[in-house]
Amino acid sequence: MNWLDQVKWDASGLVPVIAQEQGSNDVLMFAWMNREALGKTAELGRAVYFSRSRNKLWFKGEESGHVQTVHEIRLDCDNDVVLLKVTQLGHEPGIACHTGRHSCFFSKLEDGQWSAVEPVLKDPESIYK
Amino acid sequence: MNWLDQVKWDASGLVPVIAQEQGSNDVLMFAWMNREALGKTAELGRAVYFSRSRNKLWFKGEESGHVQTVHEIRLDCDNDVVLLKVTQLGHEPGIACHTGRHSCFFSKLEDGQWSAVEPVLKDPESIYK
Repeated sequence: MNWLDQVKWDASGLVPVIAQEQGSNDVLMFAWMNREALGKTAELGRAVYFSRSRNKLWFKGEESGHVQTVHEIRLDCDNDVVLLKVTQLGHEPGIACHTGRHSCFFSKLEDGQWSAVEPVLKDPESIYK
Repeated sequence: MNWLDQVKWDASGLVPVIAQEQGSNDVLMFAWMNREALGKTAELGRAVYFSRSRNKLWFKGEESGHVQTVHEIRLDCDNDVVLLKVTQLGHEPGIACHTGRHSCFFSKLEDGQWSAVEPVLKDPESIYK
């Protein structure tokens, strides 16, 4: 049985994916994959997601240069969520977020409000030329 | 504006949630919340999810005793994914998974197969009596 057949794809043929930084264990981002994206990720050793807004494969870093090398692919107990251990390339420290931040999870609930608590490491306008 | 209004709930009124262990930064589990669950989580300082299979609030640990204390609630750049920083209570080391393991992400892709690479810390039959 192919390992891809053991993943429980949702009604849209997708699975949620968490990208975690190897070493720091920081959660960098959350995205989706279809079967082809997960297959390509394993084959290439780099993160390939499925963009729901553009309805096509999204080779992470294809525009920004912020490619993710994939060290491990994990699956959860229900076979319906994937966790990647990655190295975030293209900038030091790594930038996973399109806002130019290390992680997409930069908003923190404080006193009943969402506050941006992580710095912008690079101006997004200079990332997406 | 209420902070809960800033969350982009999906068509089912849910948002994906990642639970990450404070300190180790291990990703423990992935689940869903509706508006009420996220409000309760913030109010009580403990993780309250929404069970899609049981279609009701799921006070994490209500059966197992494996309650999660919530230290931080974060939101991603698209306002549609939540990240919790938690302490996993009820066992040392913490057990987040219903299989009796520390984390739900215990299956690792190795040589084209999913292999369980994390130990069972407690027999599930003795967790769910």
